[in-house]
Amino acid sequence: MSGSPRDIFFKVLGVSEAAARLAANWHPSPRPGEEVDLLQAGGRVTAKAVPAGEDVPPFDRSTVDGFALRAADTFGASEGLPAFLDLGEDVRMGKEAGGKITVGGAARIATGGMLPPGADAVVMLEYCESIDEGMVAVLTPVAPGENVIRRGEDISTGNQLLPAGHRLRPADIGALAALGLTRILVRPAPKVGIISTGDEVVPPNSKLAPGQIRDINSYSLGAAVTAAGGEPLYLGIARDEFAAVKTKVLAGLASCDVVILSGGSSVGARDVAGEVLAELGPPGVLVHGVALRPGKPLLIALCQGKPVFGLPGHPVSVLTTFDLFVKPAIERLLGLTPGLRPRLWARLGRNIASPPGREEHIRVRLLETEEGLLAEPVLGKSGLITTLVAAQGTIIIPLGKEGLAAGTEVEVYLL
Amino acid sequence: MSGSPRDIFFKVLGVSEAAARLAANWHPSPRPGEEVDLLQAGGRVTAKAVPAGEDVPPFDRSTVDGFALRAADTFGASEGLPAFLDLGEDVRMGKEAGGKITVGGAARIATGGMLPPGADAVVMLEYCESIDEGMVAVLTPVAPGENVIRRGEDISTGNQLLPAGHRLRPADIGALAALGLTRILVRPAPKVGIISTGDEVVPPNSKLAPGQIRDINSYSLGAAVTAAGGEPLYLGIARDEFAAVKTKVLAGLASCDVVILSGGSSVGARDVAGEVLAELGPPGVLVHGVALRPGKPLLIALCQGKPVFGLPGHPVSVLTTFDLFVKPAIERLLGLTPGLRPRLWARLGRNIASPPGREEHIRVRLLETEEGLLAEPVLGKSGLITTLVAAQGTIIIPLGKEGLAAGTEVEVYLL
Repeated sequence: MSGSPRDIFFKVLGVSEAAARLAANWHPSPRPGEEVDLLQAGGRVTAKAVPAGEDVPPFDRSTVDGFALRAADTFGASEGLPAFLDLGEDVRMGKEAGGKITVGGAARIATGGMLPPGADAVVMLEYCESIDEGMVAVLTPVAPGENVIRRGEDISTGNQLLPAGHRLRPADIGALAALGLTRILVRPAPKVGIISTGDEVVPPNSKLAPGQIRDINSYSLGAAVTAAGGEPLYLGIARDEFAAVKTKVLAGLASCDVVILSGGSSVGARDVAGEVLAELGPPGVLVHGVALRPGKPLLIALCQGKPVFGLPGHPVSVLTTFDLFVKPAIERLLGLTPGLRPRLWARLGRNIASPPGREEHIRVRLLETEEGLLAEPVLGKSGLITTLVAAQGTIIIPLGKEGLAAGTEVEVYLL
Repeated sequence: MSGSPRDIFFKVLGVSEAAARLAANWHPSPRPGEEVDLLQAGGRVTAKAVPAGEDVPPFDRSTVDGFALRAADTFGASEGLPAFLDLGEDVRMGKEAGGKITVGGAARIATGGMLPPGADAVVMLEYCESIDEGMVAVLTPVAPGENVIRRGEDISTGNQLLPAGHRLRPADIGALAALGLTRILVRPAPKVGIISTGDEVVPPNSKLAPGQIRDINSYSLGAAVTAAGGEPLYLGIARDEFAAVKTKVLAGLASCDVVILSGGSSVGARDVAGEVLAELGPPGVLVHGVALRPGKPLLIALCQGKPVFGLPGHPVSVLTTFDLFVKPAIERLLGLTPGLRPRLWARLGRNIASPPGREEHIRVRLLETEEGLLAEPVLGKSGLITTLVAAQGTIIIPLGKEGLAAGTEVEVYLL
């Protein structure tokens, strides 16, 4: 017990310094990909680059309904002086176009039809007049290649369709189907062990005795791990004792790629987590405290080559530090190229004061108003999970700034 | 065959008019919710409002490590003139705080501990000095309620925790755990039947004969349906013939909540789809053509009380019209309150011309530059799926505008 805050013994780092320290010390070896069916591949991350094994489309295709022809035969054509072309066999959808188009010839073709040999353009139906069964008048000139998608124009053999580390979106799934690739090599979901600690914490389905609270963090973290592309493993609740926490962390290290401890918001509990993680080095604890609110008492360790995160106990701190530190670790294991974080601009609805010396993450409600989007800070202590439930976004007040004035345009990261 | 475009026979509507026409005619009855385990509930949508059945926290809790006391006993305390308080039994985590705090008393308490009866505030350890085993000197005054989260301050019995129609995020999952709610009533995923049409279209695992192309749209749409919270049912490929298309649509109506037809980009194929959907009314076809690029030849129908979408054949048009029309239908079946669509601001990298009279959706690459985010249009015909694969976002040029100049600040919707 002392007059000076214990916090000063923390080697408090900035958010990016803390992240960089983990990145510099952790060198996960890439794990082999796993093959999944294309129908199940949405949202998964490519394990290697995907080259195109063939051309898409596999033949020159019409993009309109009209007549396939030789562009040169239409040069100079007009309503007053049409080009009269002899009609060959119609192009049938899904069939090889049979008859070669020779000088002065044309063939009726529908959108998606295969250009007959000899043809190099298509004129739209709307610019033609039927003369008889065997002849069409073309009222406009067309350029070579007009209304045609060339063989390989979409995807060309040997070109890279997708890089490794790419999260598959619906359009990517479609492009893979176009190439006939129905089995895709993706990164396995990193296994993330989740441990809650605290003598007062009991499973959610328990009837509460006085002094007990339910385990919030295992559940919110499990959902966050899944959303980030990981697979949560629920390792249960450990009492705030060295042996109990160590046993759970060892179980996590044996079965998982990343381990999260949460809870232990008291100094004593933090000490237990810190001691366990120090013992499981080297290097053990890399980061002990971050200049961040909420989330300051964060521990980041590397044990048996795997990251272990000691997240603060407050439910809001837990999700804030998850987004900043654990999610990037999952993405690194996925080999995922970090994308742009969805963000909006909004006007701040009221003044916010922020103590200097830490980066502050403020939860906000977003309201559509006549003057545009308004970001209204959600008031309430950072221990309250409902401040997150009520929020749609987060704004960040950087380390050096002591607050923001109402009316300021702020960048809002969507939750 | 005629000199005037067939398109003029379409009753072309604006995007919002087209959406409104479906909304006004379609009255789906809410379906019963299904119960899922809380661990599986992330991303699902609540089927009814969730009221709080109890208080969270269930008791007054300390938010710091320190001493529980009666605030009045510290009034006027300072380093020069501390308040000397008699220490009772320590509060143990997870246990009912035993000894009542009487005038001049205090009890050691850790973060998360239950406030003993009689105490109304906590003083942080840092502002105290130990005198002996039985006495502590408090060096600062504390206000009633300081460093305490009151019983029910986070969630109060009877209050609504979550509304119906809310998509469950990690924080929501945590709040449900806090209330001991481990089974959650969510809306069942709407079943969406997916039909590709076209004589030239074959399944992706086929070896291609000349003139054939693989089915892209069933796959990209399936991934899009899943991402929107629906359950895709793959109904296969129909030839561009009335009977074949009708059989598939009837199968879709029998087993699904929504049916999507895609393909049929030729006028003949569109006619087949339109005739089938007209016959399956009333009301049948509601929208035939939208002032939109890509995606103009869109059909929206209501058959047997269910929406049927005839999406244009081009893979890019398919995903554009899906986002604008099918996704909102899935969200309506989920009872989901539409959220804010993630969007960024960026500078346009080059001039874009756009024909008047239609809303144009342009795919863009996003590049981080020293001057901020740059949106670079992805060039290429709208039939090319790779223009979507290469893009991270979409910008919209409204109906009345004929283009945008390079350097304009544009709103980019993330793909």
